[in-house]
Amino acid sequence: MLQNLPIGIFDSGVGGLTVYRALHEHLPNERFVYLGDTARVPYGTKSLATVERYAVENARFLAEHEIKLLVVACNTASALALPAIRAALNIDVAGVIGPGARAAVAGSNQAGSQSSKRIGVIATESTVQSGAYTQAIRKADSAATIVERACPLFVPLAEEGWADADVARTIAQTYLKDLGSQIDTLVLGCTHYPILRNVIQETVGEQVALIDSGEATAIEVKGLLREKGLARLTPGTGALERQLCDDLDHFYVTDAAERFSRVAERFLGSKPERLEAVEVWGEDRLRT
Amino acid sequence: MLQNLPIGIFDSGVGGLTVYRALHEHLPNERFVYLGDTARVPYGTKSLATVERYAVENARFLAEHEIKLLVVACNTASALALPAIRAALNIDVAGVIGPGARAAVAGSNQAGSQSSKRIGVIATESTVQSGAYTQAIRKADSAATIVERACPLFVPLAEEGWADADVARTIAQTYLKDLGSQIDTLVLGCTHYPILRNVIQETVGEQVALIDSGEATAIEVKGLLREKGLARLTPGTGALERQLCDDLDHFYVTDAAERFSRVAERFLGSKPERLEAVEVWGEDRLRT
Repeated sequence: MLQNLPIGIFDSGVGGLTVYRALHEHLPNERFVYLGDTARVPYGTKSLATVERYAVENARFLAEHEIKLLVVACNTASALALPAIRAALNIDVAGVIGPGARAAVAGSNQAGSQSSKRIGVIATESTVQSGAYTQAIRKADSAATIVERACPLFVPLAEEGWADADVARTIAQTYLKDLGSQIDTLVLGCTHYPILRNVIQETVGEQVALIDSGEATAIEVKGLLREKGLARLTPGTGALERQLCDDLDHFYVTDAAERFSRVAERFLGSKPERLEAVEVWGEDRLRT
Repeated sequence: MLQNLPIGIFDSGVGGLTVYRALHEHLPNERFVYLGDTARVPYGTKSLATVERYAVENARFLAEHEIKLLVVACNTASALALPAIRAALNIDVAGVIGPGARAAVAGSNQAGSQSSKRIGVIATESTVQSGAYTQAIRKADSAATIVERACPLFVPLAEEGWADADVARTIAQTYLKDLGSQIDTLVLGCTHYPILRNVIQETVGEQVALIDSGEATAIEVKGLLREKGLARLTPGTGALERQLCDDLDHFYVTDAAERFSRVAERFLGSKPERLEAVEVWGEDRLRT
């Protein structure tokens, strides 16, 4: 039955686990297959052609695992490669840019009479260069004022586990110190940034509402599954029962599973139980 | 004539330009072909199998360009993949680990009677995990005391151009503050680290001698070319003459040439004149 198939999620690496966590929380009945392209991470400094190529390879790998829906957790891949991915698959594909943009516009409009729909977006170099967030926000509200800014050091900072260190504060200051006064809402436009939420909030000030695109995506995906009749009906069972019934989420990486597992623990609170290193491209794969 | 062929250099990205610069300074008569694997950078967080695969693909690409010698500028690739590269090519291959290790031992021994051959190495996670520097230093001096430490944030920091900012000082303090008292010599075991030389020296203290593995490699390569009769005899000519004679160095990248050019300017002082994006792996390449 189509409803019982898992949801596929891919990311350039470990960052998409923040999106996985949000999906898992909002959709406790669903099972997930996650692919982290750790052999080619990061995408945020790479070109359109390369990100498209990697994204389509990842999407095809997951499609072969019989998924009912694909979530592109990586903001850079969502910004650059969504049309190419949709052309390559015959299932629904959800990115994180649209949901993040719509949640920002909704949040900014709710911010009371003081609000002037001034929305900030922080993301990788490639996401900012693509202008995808600006386009999506304008589509949701043509009157919004938008400031996009790349924060390249945030990704390695989150992976290093220094989210609350002085270093994080100094880096956030350097990127964001003048931003708080210019905006009322800020989109965390990269999967790693929710890890740095506290220090980002502290730097831009409490008056700025932070929007987690992953969270916004989980909410939209919930609606989409219901609308399409694709939601899984089995009630969620306990961890032990799921294990006994082989109903666990699967995690795949293209490289360095041990490092992924270590960083995943920092992101999820525990190590993934089912983790496997796989090939999604190249000679070996072409031969099969 | 074999002597007139260029020297090949590859790196995971832009960092190897510090090695290129050292080679260019020590060997002004030579021409170089540089490949930066910017589509798959960084290598420092990736596994042995993946680094070997990428390194061999890069080495083969350069070997097809008729080079007389290959310099593996990337410390991670030198640490993990030198045997695989040597097995794949039939020309001499020089890595940066051996020269860096030998220069550190020589420097530490010269440091006067106070010296106790206490050598520190800072590098990427994968280089440190490989233990390649420890092995090479022990081979040169079995009595040396060695401390290896991974400094993952140094690479994005150098690429961001924040070498002299407060952020650089805070990060260097976090990684290195206790190191200065433990060592007399410190190997900069990643191509990006010479960019951060000032802040590293300041943090470990002036009493610690810094060894740039790229510099050490350039000196050894000079000796190797002379010994093998491979040094180019043509006297170095002016920039204009070299341009007229099509005697310029060539730079290849696997992705995002524009970004490479921008960061290269920070590393070299000027943009590379001959820069081209190429395929070194994958379906397209297999077909040719």
